[in-house]
Order: sequence, then C-alpha cells, then structure tokens
Amino acid sequence: MEKPYVLGLDMGGTNSVLGIVDARGQVLARISIKTQQYTDINDYVNALYEEATKIVEPIGGFEMIRGIGAGAPNANYYTGNIEQAPNLPWKGIVPFAQLLEQKFGMPAKITNDANAAAVGEMTYGAARGMKDFIMITLGTGVGGGVVVNGQVLYGHDGFAGELGHVTVDYSENARMCGCGHKGHLEAYASATGVARTAKEIVTTTKKKTLLRELDPNNITSKDVFDAAEKGDAVAKEIFDYTGMMLGRALADFIHFSAPEAIIMFGGLTKAGKYILDPVVKTMNESVMTIWKDKVKVMFSDLKEADAAVLGASALAWE
Amino acid sequence: MEKPYVLGLDMGGTNSVLGIVDARGQVLARISIKTQQYTDINDYVNALYEEATKIVEPIGGFEMIRGIGAGAPNANYYTGNIEQAPNLPWKGIVPFAQLLEQKFGMPAKITNDANAAAVGEMTYGAARGMKDFIMITLGTGVGGGVVVNGQVLYGHDGFAGELGHVTVDYSENARMCGCGHKGHLEAYASATGVARTAKEIVTTTKKKTLLRELDPNNITSKDVFDAAEKGDAVAKEIFDYTGMMLGRALADFIHFSAPEAIIMFGGLTKAGKYILDPVVKTMNESVMTIWKDKVKVMFSDLKEADAAVLGASALAWE
Repeated sequence: MEKPYVLGLDMGGTNSVLGIVDARGQVLARISIKTQQYTDINDYVNALYEEATKIVEPIGGFEMIRGIGAGAPNANYYTGNIEQAPNLPWKGIVPFAQLLEQKFGMPAKITNDANAAAVGEMTYGAARGMKDFIMITLGTGVGGGVVVNGQVLYGHDGFAGELGHVTVDYSENARMCGCGHKGHLEAYASATGVARTAKEIVTTTKKKTLLRELDPNNITSKDVFDAAEKGDAVAKEIFDYTGMMLGRALADFIHFSAPEAIIMFGGLTKAGKYILDPVVKTMNESVMTIWKDKVKVMFSDLKEADAAVLGASALAWE
Repeated sequence: MEKPYVLGLDMGGTNSVLGIVDARGQVLARISIKTQQYTDINDYVNALYEEATKIVEPIGGFEMIRGIGAGAPNANYYTGNIEQAPNLPWKGIVPFAQLLEQKFGMPAKITNDANAAAVGEMTYGAARGMKDFIMITLGTGVGGGVVVNGQVLYGHDGFAGELGHVTVDYSENARMCGCGHKGHLEAYASATGVARTAKEIVTTTKKKTLLRELDPNNITSKDVFDAAEKGDAVAKEIFDYTGMMLGRALADFIHFSAPEAIIMFGGLTKAGKYILDPVVKTMNESVMTIWKDKVKVMFSDLKEADAAVLGASALAWE
C-alpha cells in the first residue's frame, strides 16, 4: 500500500511547526516547538520527534508516513545541510536532512523556508497557475523564494533567493543585519526591523505616540499595528518607512526576474494595508516604465502556518 | 537543402553589428552601422539591409540564410517588440522583429542584447558547461543576462535581466539614470558612467591628473584606462569607484540567483584588472559568508563583437 501521508516542517527563527499532510494538501494535525530553546541540534530533532509522535500515533504511526520535507533558514536543497544560518542557534554546517532521516526513519528533503512557502503557494495558494513569481516571507527575518518558469530557483549551490540580504541602505549609518553586513532588507522589513524602527523613534525623538507607553525594548510589530489601528500617526509612519524599504527592494527584484506577482507571507503581513500601501507605492515609483503598475503585490491566501508547512511537505512527495 | 547560415545582429546604443554565422559558430563576415544616426526605425532597418546585402551576396544571397536573430536594448523575446528603450533613438513600442521579417524576408527573433550575449557565452565562450551564471554587459549602458538551469531567464513578460537598473545609491545626490530614475547601476558602471565620474573629479576637485589635459566633456573610459596605464592615481581611483559600485550590485545578484560565475562583457572590460580587482573586492566583502570567495568573476573570452552576434544568431537556429 502507498503510504498516504507526508510530514511538513516549517522551521522559523522563533517557532517550528510540523504538520501531517495528506495527498489533497490538507493539514490534518500540527505540533510546534520553540526553535531557540535547543542549543544542540540533536535535542531539537529529538524534541520534534517526540512531539510528532503525539499526532502521528492517531493516524496509524510513522509507517503511514512517506517522508518529511522541511523549510528552514539557509537550508540547502542539494546537500541537505543548514549552513551558516544567522537566525538559528546552531552555527556552522548542520546535516539536518540526514539527522531527520535517522531519527524519523524516512526520506527527508529540506529547502529554505521561503522556497518551501513558494512551493506551497504555487500548489495551493495565491500563485496557483503562475509560472513566474516571488515569495517574500516577512517574519523574524526576511526570506525569499523565486519561482522561474514554474520551478524554484535554487542556483548553482542551492542557496538562491536570499532576498532578505540585498542592500537597501548604503549610507554610513545603515543598520547592521544579523548576518554581519550593513543595510540589508532584513534589518528593516522584518518583524524585528519594525521593532527596531519603533524603538529608534521612541528613544530618539519626542514625537507623541501610543508606543511611548510601552517598554521600548519590547515593542513588537503587533503593538505597532494596534497603535496604527487606533489612528496613531507614528505607528503609520513606522509602516510607511518599512514599506518604503521593502518597495525599494521589490523594484530591484522586478528588474532582475520580471515576475507576474510578488506574494508576501509571514507575521508582518498582519499589518494589512498599513504595510501593503507604502510597498506598492514605492515599488511603482521605483520600477522602470515597462513595469509601472503591472506587477501584482498580494498577501498569501493560505492560513498563516499552512503555506510553509504545505510547501515543505510537497518536497516529501517527490 | 537546409539553409546553411543565420544572421546575428548586435544592436548597441552606439553601434549595430550584423554578422553571418555558420552552424559551427564561425562569424564569416560582418558589417556595422551607427545606431543613433537613424531617427526613423524604418531607415535603420533599410540601412541594415543594404549593408547586409554586401556581405550576403558573396555567400550566395539571402536564400542561403535561415533567419535573423537580434540582441537589442529592451527587446522582448515574447512579443518581438523593442519597448521604451532609454538608450535608443526610437521611443515607445517598436515592432522590430516584424520589421526585420518584412525587410529581410526570413524569420526574426529578438532578445535583449545582454541575453543574447549570455547565449553566445554559454554556447561558445567562458560559460560553456555552466548552468547558472550571470552576464553583465558594460557598454554605453549596463545590461544583464541571467541564466538559470541552462536557460535564459525571460520572466513573466520577457523583460527580465534589466540589471543596469538596480539601485546602487539611495542618497539624495545619487546620479540620474537614462531611464529617469536615480542611483541606478548604469549611471556608474557603464562607459558613460566612467566618463561622468572622470568629469566630476576633473571639474569639482583640484586633484592632479593627466585627465585634466582633456576636454572634461569628452573624456572616455579609454582615456581613463590610458591614464591608469601611465600610473595616474586619479584614473585608478575612477576605476576603483566604478568597480565598487558594480561589486555592490553583484553581491545582491548573488543573493538573488546564486550563480556559479559572473561574466563581464563590453567596452569597459578593456580596463582589465583596473576594473576587475575592485569589483571582486567589493563583491566578496558584501556577500553573505556562504558565497565569500566562491563566485567566479571573469571577462568574456569571445572576441569583442562575437559574443553578442553569436548569441543573437543562435536565436535564429531555434
């Protein structure tokens, strides 16, 4: 009998979500663990397996599962390694696919989380029927998945699509990125980038804002959204700035790969029009005439955790 | 009998070169005309045909030619149109492939000049055997040809690879680009960009340089190279600046598509190590750790006009 299920793992810098997926793309059950809690990758894999057991037992055990696919930061599709990931607790080169195969006793494939999300979006989401689009994940970091002619762009070494690490500010006082370089998109257009912008404004200006009532070290992008919803001008200014930085980068991406659409996914998209409007505005102001007002910018229409889990799981069907 | 030859046209902002190419990739003969001399596209096509006749007659006439392929700025592979090209005398949308077909009486295909050069390089040049590389053309403008998994990246609309129009300077006083936007790579890393840098230094500083002996409005990248060869420090500084701006952009390109190599082609590459060294330095300083010192940067090893002509001609075999 064909094994009827696959596992999809979405490993984020903060949380890791693992789901059981059937052949029709339904996520039957999911568990999650805190990524940062495990300083040893083996402890992480063991914890994942233990939690997975709880949802796998009810559907007939691991022998019902065909394989596991994982989306993880800096994951290499070709080698199965996670390499030099700035936002994960494990440094250097981690043979993650191999560790998963040994622990779970089934084939494992990995790719970067944004590539996985792109596959999920193409198969079940907003990118159905599209052959050329770009997926941008706006979470703890910023990830990218580039689809060209219906296929994920992996590049020569398997690491293509590191769109969070293009430079959007070349000035002296550009922000440091987690990867050690200055001015990268991720330092501005991630959830943490929004928190940095909020902290900067609260601590270096006297502008009146609801955000001043919070501990400046703990303002989240959710707090900024809540303030914007209450009409807070500074909160809107924070999203305008964030969107402008992202829009700049998107214009360059369009010049590079001329996608039909750019699909945004991840925590920051909860800010809705506060982030979408300035992104679209700057993007269209910045692209060459031939692309002005032509490239769609949209949010993922999959449920939050699903795109990445489904995309990751799709690797396991291959 | 199979027609044994194709025509390849390399249309640059300044010169247009047309060659007869055989099945083994030999350019048997070539002619050239000045692109800017023809303000009407029909006059351009007529002049091209008239010149072509001179080299086509000796090999047996146009009935020996299978088709014509052209590399031209802002050319669309899918539609056959040249659209909104900032560096050409013809504005709006020009149905160039159609005009060629009517005048030459044979099938015509067009793509942007850098994509054509990329195909030439992959078939006959430095990129033989490579499946993922980026071609950068450094001429009057800056063009790009991105090859992914052995195929030219055309994108959703056929215009992908406009790498001269990514932004490398977001500051207030960034240079205007020919396309109407500020801070684009082309305004710095083209032959005209080098001339602008030279003029800026000569007219706004008191630095001692051989370039001061020339009319500041007519300094060419060749003049800057000649001065560098004589040990002129300012000339070297000009190439260092140019290479730094190009290196910045290449780092972003690597983050996007993770190529095995970046191949530079066009007039500016005559500057040799003066341009190559600062490009490689800035690129490796700017890329994420996983790509540091890993991506080859090289010059085209095809003769100057050949890469583009051969690449363009390859379209006609399809």
